Amino acid sequence: MTEFRRDPIIGRWVIIAEERGKRPSDFTDEEYSVQRGFCPFCQGNEGWTPPEILAVRASKTGANRPGWQLRVVPNKYPALVTQGDLDRREFGLYEKMSGIGAHEVIIETPDHTVSLADLPLDHFCIVIESFKARLLALSKDARFELAIIFKNHGRPAGASLEHSHSQLIALPIIPKRVSEELQGALNYFLAKNQCIYCEIIRTELERCERVIDVSEHFILLAPYASRFPFEMWLLPREHSSHFERTSPDMLNHLADFMKKALLRMNQALASPPYNFLLHTSPFSDKSARYYHWHFEIIPKLSRIAGFEWGTGFYINPTSPEQATRFLKGSE
Amino acid sequence: MTEFRRDPIIGRWVIIAEERGKRPSDFTDEEYSVQRGFCPFCQGNEGWTPPEILAVRASKTGANRPGWQLRVVPNKYPALVTQGDLDRREFGLYEKMSGIGAHEVIIETPDHTVSLADLPLDHFCIVIESFKARLLALSKDARFELAIIFKNHGRPAGASLEHSHSQLIALPIIPKRVSEELQGALNYFLAKNQCIYCEIIRTELERCERVIDVSEHFILLAPYASRFPFEMWLLPREHSSHFERTSPDMLNHLADFMKKALLRMNQALASPPYNFLLHTSPFSDKSARYYHWHFEIIPKLSRIAGFEWGTGFYINPTSPEQATRFLKGSE
Repeated sequence: MTEFRRDPIIGRWVIIAEERGKRPSDFTDEEYSVQRGFCPFCQGNEGWTPPEILAVRASKTGANRPGWQLRVVPNKYPALVTQGDLDRREFGLYEKMSGIGAHEVIIETPDHTVSLADLPLDHFCIVIESFKARLLALSKDARFELAIIFKNHGRPAGASLEHSHSQLIALPIIPKRVSEELQGALNYFLAKNQCIYCEIIRTELERCERVIDVSEHFILLAPYASRFPFEMWLLPREHSSHFERTSPDMLNHLADFMKKALLRMNQALASPPYNFLLHTSPFSDKSARYYHWHFEIIPKLSRIAGFEWGTGFYINPTSPEQATRFLKGSE
Repeated sequence: MTEFRRDPIIGRWVIIAEERGKRPSDFTDEEYSVQRGFCPFCQGNEGWTPPEILAVRASKTGANRPGWQLRVVPNKYPALVTQGDLDRREFGLYEKMSGIGAHEVIIETPDHTVSLADLPLDHFCIVIESFKARLLALSKDARFELAIIFKNHGRPAGASLEHSHSQLIALPIIPKRVSEELQGALNYFLAKNQCIYCEIIRTELERCERVIDVSEHFILLAPYASRFPFEMWLLPREHSSHFERTSPDMLNHLADFMKKALLRMNQALASPPYNFLLHTSPFSDKSARYYHWHFEIIPKLSRIAGFEWGTGFYINPTSPEQATRFLKGSE
């Protein structure tokens, strides 16, 4: 049974996903090692994944057969299930709901050996377009409040399969950390009648010391209060609340800009393991003037230790200014 | 310069500690590997640490010389510095303060080869007593709001040195995650005139399914909304807000109970890397009836991936009930 459980003190929801359950003896490095040899995401192995939800494929090829450039499939070991009702229950101190949600995998390429950053630009663009397509589709399911798209690249960043892929999780509730961000942005908007991300972009462009790259339409920043060494935020320069509303033309610009950002990171930091995560407005917030979609990109260079997880207070040994200079090649 | 920086959107403080700064090329496994060979925490190498703040040592031995059982020293590469004023400044969107605080290391034993759980009980007791002594001392410094004591055991849990040690960080501000916990507990107290941790203990003792161990004075639980596989909370059964007020007699009981908890974890999970973290009331909250000190103990079995850090929403593949059965040896 997969279920959401609410911590009675802090109000944080947790997903208890026992179907993914492992015996403690399974929690070894072996089990977590990136599998070599057989890969369920490779061309020809389509039968090893659940049936595809979306695919970009040559015109005469059939679904779940070879001939594709990108496939989106349900996660074979989903943390959440798509069928059923939320069935929210309280009993004394505790509260739980069924683990309803969508958990999808975006297989970015049929080629096992290539990483996202190294995909040709037109292929990178297909990946970005698939993000939009899935967000649009899931936004029509009234059970979902929000979807998160993220990538774990490399074992230290949490990837269990080597083959380049991203993941999408759609949720019936807004996670605590996300709702704090939405609330913080809303508070600023109510006070100043302005989007705080637009204001950050303006401030950073004036100061320059934390701007890693900028194009006509996008900006790549080292955020002022970076939690991690070389943390980067990628934002559209013009206010935009929902990623799924991005125009096809702008998606092309984004692909170009984001590919460059990943290549820059790979160049400066020797192709590190990394995570990225797309933050975008809740589906039901039709005209979010206060929230501005963006990618957070985090190279996985340091371990999160006891102090950090226990306090939410991060110790970052590299200032964002130093990170910016290094990523720009000026240090 | 070490400084606190506040994220303008979410309000989270981050410590930017550039003195600890590493060149990106330093972020390799080499650099992070547990050092073998020379160890600054071993007996005879006292000169390699800053002068001791506290030591338990044979009566005729001099400070910073061999002959000790436990030493507390300032961290040689502190994330925070003890001298100076907070110098809080706002400039536009951003806010910062000097990185004032205490960062200490508790070297738990002169023996490089023994781990905390395997220390003889009387020595384990000395470790627990040192926690109390340092909290009492730091509570008298009016600049500090709170201290956190934590342990990173093993490389995957963030330890950079193998020799058994814990750390203490005293802070002039209350970290976000901690203040959320305090606030949640206070809200419950205001509504029900009762400590929520006392209520959790009562509920869990009735149900039994998440009680791993219990003695006359302490209880070891798998919390209902566990974020991590085999997460454990250790609490005194009787309400107690401040760890540093624990009586010497009760500290003895605690040492016995906590040693057993660590041995149980080592037995069931093959001596995993782990973190523990002591949560206790802020120094200035003189009569905190709403907050109950406790240890969180987390074996480091899974990696935190993109989804978790981006949302604060944890996916836990092992339910606390299953974890309890396994830790009790009944599964």
